[in-house]
Amino acid sequence: LSIFNKPSPRLVCLRESSNGFLFTLSLDFLLLHCCFSSCKFIVFSSKTYFQPTSKTRKTKFDSILETPIFKVNNTFDSSPSHPLDPLTIQEINKAQIIISSYKPFLGSFPSIRSLSLDEPEKIQVLNWKYGNPLPPRRALVIAWANDQVHLLIVDLNLGQIISHVQNPGSGYPPISIDDVRVAIRATLSNEEFNKSIVARGVNFSDLVCTTPSSGWFGPEEEGKRIMKVRCYSSQGTPSFYMRPIEGLIVIVDIDKGEVIKILDTSPKIPIPYGENTDYRYTSQDMPPQMEPLNPISIEQPKGPSFTIENGHNVKWANWDFHLKADQRAGIVISRARIRDSETGEPRSVMYKGFASELFVPYMDIDENWYFRSYMDAGEFGLGATAMSLVPLNDCPRYSYFMDGLFVTADGKPFVQPNIICVFERYAGDISWRHSDLPIHGFEERIRESRPKVTLVARMAASVGNYDYIFDWEFQTDGLIRVTVGLSGMLMVKGTPQNSTNEDDIFGALVSENVIGVAHDHFITFHLDMDIDGPINSFVKVDLVKEENPSTKTPRKSYWKAKRQVIEKEKDAQIKLKLYEPSEFHFINPLRKSRIGNPTGYKIVPKGNAASLLDLDDPPQVRSAFTNNQIWVTPYNKFEQWAGGLLVYQSKGEDTLAVWSNRNREIKEKDIVLWYTLGFHHVPCQEDFPVMPTVTSTFDLKPLNFFERNPILRARPNFDEDLPVCRSTNLN
Amino acid sequence: LSIFNKPSPRLVCLRESSNGFLFTLSLDFLLLHCCFSSCKFIVFSSKTYFQPTSKTRKTKFDSILETPIFKVNNTFDSSPSHPLDPLTIQEINKAQIIISSYKPFLGSFPSIRSLSLDEPEKIQVLNWKYGNPLPPRRALVIAWANDQVHLLIVDLNLGQIISHVQNPGSGYPPISIDDVRVAIRATLSNEEFNKSIVARGVNFSDLVCTTPSSGWFGPEEEGKRIMKVRCYSSQGTPSFYMRPIEGLIVIVDIDKGEVIKILDTSPKIPIPYGENTDYRYTSQDMPPQMEPLNPISIEQPKGPSFTIENGHNVKWANWDFHLKADQRAGIVISRARIRDSETGEPRSVMYKGFASELFVPYMDIDENWYFRSYMDAGEFGLGATAMSLVPLNDCPRYSYFMDGLFVTADGKPFVQPNIICVFERYAGDISWRHSDLPIHGFEERIRESRPKVTLVARMAASVGNYDYIFDWEFQTDGLIRVTVGLSGMLMVKGTPQNSTNEDDIFGALVSENVIGVAHDHFITFHLDMDIDGPINSFVKVDLVKEENPSTKTPRKSYWKAKRQVIEKEKDAQIKLKLYEPSEFHFINPLRKSRIGNPTGYKIVPKGNAASLLDLDDPPQVRSAFTNNQIWVTPYNKFEQWAGGLLVYQSKGEDTLAVWSNRNREIKEKDIVLWYTLGFHHVPCQEDFPVMPTVTSTFDLKPLNFFERNPILRARPNFDEDLPVCRSTNLN
Repeated sequence: LSIFNKPSPRLVCLRESSNGFLFTLSLDFLLLHCCFSSCKFIVFSSKTYFQPTSKTRKTKFDSILETPIFKVNNTFDSSPSHPLDPLTIQEINKAQIIISSYKPFLGSFPSIRSLSLDEPEKIQVLNWKYGNPLPPRRALVIAWANDQVHLLIVDLNLGQIISHVQNPGSGYPPISIDDVRVAIRATLSNEEFNKSIVARGVNFSDLVCTTPSSGWFGPEEEGKRIMKVRCYSSQGTPSFYMRPIEGLIVIVDIDKGEVIKILDTSPKIPIPYGENTDYRYTSQDMPPQMEPLNPISIEQPKGPSFTIENGHNVKWANWDFHLKADQRAGIVISRARIRDSETGEPRSVMYKGFASELFVPYMDIDENWYFRSYMDAGEFGLGATAMSLVPLNDCPRYSYFMDGLFVTADGKPFVQPNIICVFERYAGDISWRHSDLPIHGFEERIRESRPKVTLVARMAASVGNYDYIFDWEFQTDGLIRVTVGLSGMLMVKGTPQNSTNEDDIFGALVSENVIGVAHDHFITFHLDMDIDGPINSFVKVDLVKEENPSTKTPRKSYWKAKRQVIEKEKDAQIKLKLYEPSEFHFINPLRKSRIGNPTGYKIVPKGNAASLLDLDDPPQVRSAFTNNQIWVTPYNKFEQWAGGLLVYQSKGEDTLAVWSNRNREIKEKDIVLWYTLGFHHVPCQEDFPVMPTVTSTFDLKPLNFFERNPILRARPNFDEDLPVCRSTNLN
Repeated sequence: LSIFNKPSPRLVCLRESSNGFLFTLSLDFLLLHCCFSSCKFIVFSSKTYFQPTSKTRKTKFDSILETPIFKVNNTFDSSPSHPLDPLTIQEINKAQIIISSYKPFLGSFPSIRSLSLDEPEKIQVLNWKYGNPLPPRRALVIAWANDQVHLLIVDLNLGQIISHVQNPGSGYPPISIDDVRVAIRATLSNEEFNKSIVARGVNFSDLVCTTPSSGWFGPEEEGKRIMKVRCYSSQGTPSFYMRPIEGLIVIVDIDKGEVIKILDTSPKIPIPYGENTDYRYTSQDMPPQMEPLNPISIEQPKGPSFTIENGHNVKWANWDFHLKADQRAGIVISRARIRDSETGEPRSVMYKGFASELFVPYMDIDENWYFRSYMDAGEFGLGATAMSLVPLNDCPRYSYFMDGLFVTADGKPFVQPNIICVFERYAGDISWRHSDLPIHGFEERIRESRPKVTLVARMAASVGNYDYIFDWEFQTDGLIRVTVGLSGMLMVKGTPQNSTNEDDIFGALVSENVIGVAHDHFITFHLDMDIDGPINSFVKVDLVKEENPSTKTPRKSYWKAKRQVIEKEKDAQIKLKLYEPSEFHFINPLRKSRIGNPTGYKIVPKGNAASLLDLDDPPQVRSAFTNNQIWVTPYNKFEQWAGGLLVYQSKGEDTLAVWSNRNREIKEKDIVLWYTLGFHHVPCQEDFPVMPTVTSTFDLKPLNFFERNPILRARPNFDEDLPVCRSTNLN
């Protein structure tokens, strides 16, 4: 396939090594911003575009990182070809010029906290066809200037700002590297802090400080932007997260550049040792205690079966969809359509799907910990924190890698390379099967079985210590499976304890002096289902136990599926119940199957966990979108972010819960499904120093959408279809 | 690897084609018994041991079925080498001779309904080592003779029956082909039945009758063995299940050979047409509506990394376990051990794991349907109904196939070939990962990621219309994932309806005149966890919401993990609750980790469904093992089958629920975990005529079992490790 042969000129970010300060202080979650604010653009024409930051001798491990990655021509430097294509480099540069010549900002360019495509109205996108001119291209900008939030819409065709709103909500945009600089400078110049570091025996050269989000806990913290600085020792380990300097938090007012308070509560808690924390392959001196595995790979000698047109339009088997990276949402799937199994007609399934917010509350109420309740998408950005995927390990061979084009604080375009991969998965699974013995008239025994091949689009966000792996998997039978995997490192707490004592710890001892603090992860997905078009209804089908009213049969009970078309939002605020089960259908009331069933999809929850916090606990108020597992709202272009547009220190007045409580009509409307996938995590020793991946999934499954099994005619595997392989290290 | 080169003499079953009667009447669930009672043993030395039953010209599809399957030497005809090895051919023959010379049966050999290894006492197995003599080999026999159940233990070393119990419970053993013959003969010779068939316009040559289990519904049905005969038309389709003759049930007393009653309630319900029901690949005349997929395969040019010694002992990576097929349980995993990641010591995880029962109640109370509440393991057998897996489709290339050796009603050995496959899975997933930017002292950016390769043991039971795919998947990080997949065909009901009408149907219209009746599937697993030895405790860890007692911090609430070592069985009867979550640990109280955590595993439920039936509804009483999702019982060799040893028409006096209600001590005992995986199924058009696979899983996950992440030292994939492949159809 041609897409695998033509690497093209690429953009990379080279860190300015002159910025010694930033190299000394590694900033949890904000490292990327360092890069954003200090990167240059250089054009390469090599296949390997990684710019090693190290001058050390090459190790075997480097070969992974330098494995060639194949892609189609990068379109960031050409014109957009689809209404939903992200802004191009030229468009970002144009927006930057428009902003810098905008009167209110003349002479002092604002700090750009978000600059991305202001997607056109849905109707414009639905009516658009290839060959048509694109709807007007606009940028939505969140900027910080003069201690105010500015929300701008920049019309790139008109060359002007067409909307400017100040302080649209209580929250603030994500903090910038400049904010972090202020916080760190204030911290380092504080005498009490310095004394404490010295008293704890940490060398300043080993000091790594991070700036976890501060949350919002009432009026005391109002009217000022706060940062809470926490530090670690990186002595002897790249895994500084495992060496916390416990009981020392510096609270900084970043607008004033002043330390408000130092919490130095526990000077006697030792810093955990680092010897057992290095997880890098190059640091392992023994093979694992197991028999080595022979080479194994998903092989496709003719290349993968999908194509990606114009950088974003994925076509595979019976699916097509638009795929892009977003600085906040990470991976965004738009306009997912599947061909009808009888007519071949492309039919709409989902207008847009993405992870809207990610809430991570920790279960520790002490002064150093109570505020830790991250909202990773809105505070840090799932795309912003996604680093390049590792070929052959994060994604199998024959993966296609896609870059993210994001924007720095000074409004310049920035390429985050290879943060999405797309690949076909064959895991040895069975799509459908049936065996039967011969029956009269059909003398052959029946052994029908079809292999399952799927298409996966993946991204991994490294939001500081944690790694979140997002998979969107498309099946030929119409099912979409969304999987979230958690790996990376625990957020740990130092303790004097060397052995387990079950009382009074907010988690579990996972190594000497290291507590893995108990916590949750909630990922809330925005799923704008458009089943055969935007006008849909949400049907709750309760499986209700009934008593047998008849004496004719001795059966006492059964359950019956009772359909209820939901009229208003509040009736679509749903908590899942094992003993009061329901199905959750999205149907198109205007389109029926041959036998009169409305065409539809259902969401199939699998394992899940719910937030247990009090509804009026500040973190829960801000993340009230996790109060239910399912919500359905009418489509509203301005209701994309479940925790609100401005999340940092937000009070929770702009969440999905607030919108839904308006109780708007949702029957036969353009409606959006929200689903929250949760994990409770009580850590264990196996999670130390890096966690084996834990996953959870949900499915979007066709329901009377097709007239019958849509892959009935699928081809089985034949021996002659499969490749002939040899091992490269066979002699 | 040598195991892939030496196919050996094999046993096959050739159906006696002379038995015309059995070919005319295909018997739902009992087809295999037909084969059992009419098969001969013939030794082949060819690699392809399938004996085509058809004389038709070969189609392309045949090539799948004839793809060579590689295996190790079949050990069924040699001596057993492990205390848990199934009985060999010689042993079965010896047992048959012992039974036939046993006085009570002299002159009339009983009908054998089960004859399998009576596993030695656990202590004998645990103390046994390779090289030691095997503990005494014994067969456990369930026989039917003189209208009585006989439970025999045959000592093969002593050459005699050492135990003989009559009628050990209220239920009966599975019915035999002789029973079915009686029922069918009674049905066919019934004038009313014949008239009804003629009136419905069905040719007798198209008639296919099945004998669904009759359940047990009170004293009226006591003291006699009952069979309920239901028929279909196979005219024009191999998928007769989709063409029910609705409203006609013949109830037969099989001991008397008499029709008790004919239910002919709905003579006017049309038989659904068959044109759209043929799912065989050879019958499809068009390609599917999708772009064709390029060849894709899990490739291992050096072969798989596992070995299977003596036919049953699987060794792979850090795992070893004993694997066998069982006529009732299907796939059985025994003595699963994993190497310690630090010391290499093999450590016990699970003594025995298998699907103990499978309960499938249908949600229709009418006379023709109310009794359908299958208990597939005890009534039919998951191994008995497992047919040969289809190479390249049911299992990927490089799979190892294992046969089942079962016993016919006349006590003769019978090989069911290739019903288990074992393969390594690589699905492109990530075992663990972390990305980080350079920090001081470590100049290279961190991009650590490890591919996930697992080992799968799979079986697919075709219990009549439904196909159940059982996967046991072993991960190198110690996790065991159990997955059940459902495919095959719906159990459908004829209806005059041609278009959907939401009222008064017990399911959903899935095609013209075809209702997919709503139903559940519950698979109850017996999981005899032995974490570092048999003495374990069950710990319920409740995640309990607490209010913040302190005013020092503004956080209001959090949850805390509260451990409770469960003392007695009743406190281990657990219903899962989303808003009252718990973890469920099996720990070894005698073995602690370096930092004092007891070594353990936890069960991680994922998606699940609970039975909604009244607790006193007869099907629920018989399947009371589904009253909870989790139970823990003390180990008892005689408590293996959750629905009781004798299930057919059982009343429920010998179920897991009854045992557990004895409320025995379980703390620091040899204990067994029972977990039920449930599915609710409201059918839809996509399930017609054959269902895309639906899956559900649960995990057994190490918990402070290892000192730290056990695969920290795992090797990443390097490009030079992977194979070089070409497509066979590349020119």
